[in-house]
Amino acid sequence: MDQPTPGFQLRFPTGMAPVACVDIGGTKVALTIADASGIRGKWSEPTVKVGASDALAQQVIRMIEQGCAQCDMTKEVLGTVGVVSCGPFVLQGGMVELAAPNICGGIAGKARGLPNDWTTALLEVPLRRAFANVRIENDGVGALEAERRWGALQGLDHCAYVTWSTGIGVGVCVDGRALRGKNGNAGHWGHSFVSDDRDALCGCGNTGDVEALIAGNAMARRFASLGFSDAAQLFAAARQGRADALEIVDGLCYVMGRLLFNLMATLDVQRISIGGSVFWHQQDLLLPRLRAQIGSKLPALTSGVEIVPAGLGESVGDYAALALVL
Amino acid sequence: MDQPTPGFQLRFPTGMAPVACVDIGGTKVALTIADASGIRGKWSEPTVKVGASDALAQQVIRMIEQGCAQCDMTKEVLGTVGVVSCGPFVLQGGMVELAAPNICGGIAGKARGLPNDWTTALLEVPLRRAFANVRIENDGVGALEAERRWGALQGLDHCAYVTWSTGIGVGVCVDGRALRGKNGNAGHWGHSFVSDDRDALCGCGNTGDVEALIAGNAMARRFASLGFSDAAQLFAAARQGRADALEIVDGLCYVMGRLLFNLMATLDVQRISIGGSVFWHQQDLLLPRLRAQIGSKLPALTSGVEIVPAGLGESVGDYAALALVL
Repeated sequence: MDQPTPGFQLRFPTGMAPVACVDIGGTKVALTIADASGIRGKWSEPTVKVGASDALAQQVIRMIEQGCAQCDMTKEVLGTVGVVSCGPFVLQGGMVELAAPNICGGIAGKARGLPNDWTTALLEVPLRRAFANVRIENDGVGALEAERRWGALQGLDHCAYVTWSTGIGVGVCVDGRALRGKNGNAGHWGHSFVSDDRDALCGCGNTGDVEALIAGNAMARRFASLGFSDAAQLFAAARQGRADALEIVDGLCYVMGRLLFNLMATLDVQRISIGGSVFWHQQDLLLPRLRAQIGSKLPALTSGVEIVPAGLGESVGDYAALALVL
Repeated sequence: MDQPTPGFQLRFPTGMAPVACVDIGGTKVALTIADASGIRGKWSEPTVKVGASDALAQQVIRMIEQGCAQCDMTKEVLGTVGVVSCGPFVLQGGMVELAAPNICGGIAGKARGLPNDWTTALLEVPLRRAFANVRIENDGVGALEAERRWGALQGLDHCAYVTWSTGIGVGVCVDGRALRGKNGNAGHWGHSFVSDDRDALCGCGNTGDVEALIAGNAMARRFASLGFSDAAQLFAAARQGRADALEIVDGLCYVMGRLLFNLMATLDVQRISIGGSVFWHQQDLLLPRLRAQIGSKLPALTSGVEIVPAGLGESVGDYAALALVL
């Protein structure tokens, strides 16, 4: 495991039992251990995708046990293990398993090059065998809760957090409560349809959903033939004023703008905060274009609704699992 | 006012105070008065759209007073006045006003031919002056609650009701609670964007939203030039197997199918029930096509999610305001 990195500044309740906070993504698994004295350590590893279908869960358990050892504690003293993960989730006997296209080779097919044939990755059953208290949420819900607690959505009963990153994820709060849904999958707006493109293939198997059109992992696939081998190259060209790159950026913002409008029209939110690696590094380019996409569309539903950068900046993911257990 | 029509069969709590239930639509205002003995009377009138901006509210008040008189009661004995209304709502000092494109000439512009220049129609302030207890909800929320209570969504914590009628309205329940939003406008999925059409103009001022593409009031506008002067003519031709009509019907179901998929993907519901005049009379034609649009798209989010006809059939609207007050 990597060495722990310095913790960010949060206040922790006096006498709080130690907590382990895990963020499972398609690329890496991140762990934070904290107690009343603050962040005790942070570690991350590449997401395990080989072996039996519980290999990822065993990785999480091992990381927590090793992290506890490095903090001179046993896993038995942990108050709660909070886990945020990419989805979708499926429930087997009420227990969460991951049906995540970026992790499970059995869903995505060999075309995605994943080194396993898992249809799901086990998660909740092995974790509950290993730890006394476990809470698992969609990473969109965790990030939303973090933004509501410490970020740009504090004090709001009706709001959404959108991550524009390798994938597209959303967490929504309506009437003061984060939406979960029957399997904890509310918020998969990245897989919603807002336009008609029938060519862009998503990892989920659909064509033309938002993630297929504008996620970080879609850009090389869509724009390499236009001379942009990745998002960085595309945005660099746009910054130099190249018309072809700017047209693509406008097209990306058209799609994300429709997603944001749909959030406003269907969930009547007060504010939407946006984070994620694609957005964060290009926000000066993207934010004005996204706001212009809403413009004066249907004022009764959009008037006064704010679109703002994530208050937690690039660290939303770090805070997401902490928000579940604090 | 019309004569009262026979009530439908519901059980009312013993000792229940009388209630007045109002359904405000763009075409008509419907009133039901009920007490412990059952439905006492039902009346409806065309929606008043002339006069001062409180003319519609005054119509509602007058209808209730006249209805009470016909039931040999005074308005003072009413326990609650429940109102469901088309939206969107805007709040002025915390009180609901209607910014409904089919009622307010000041929003929709002269092109819509409305005989007033209201930007909003007053509602909650005059009603609260006239009655002790008033509850107002988006008609999508009311219909959802009726379907959850007496219809096809009973016993479900995660579900949606979709009306496919003159307009498109939706009510959604997630985690056991009907979603309302900051101004009670959650559910305006009719104004969401699911495809790229840039020609179809909606009453809300947008182009290409779901309502502009497939609502009952859009069909003549969109398909007259193809030889179908209204929905009835279009569906009749489709039933005769005419290829051009069937192609249009497939196109309508493509749009509604995307809306249904988006509901599943973003809100993780268990079941969606559909009503409304367009759907109800053509459900044998529409339902298989809508289900086919979902097909095997993203099974982790859609598997097992049912699309069913409204349990309350054509009477969902009648029950909607009752569901608020019973």
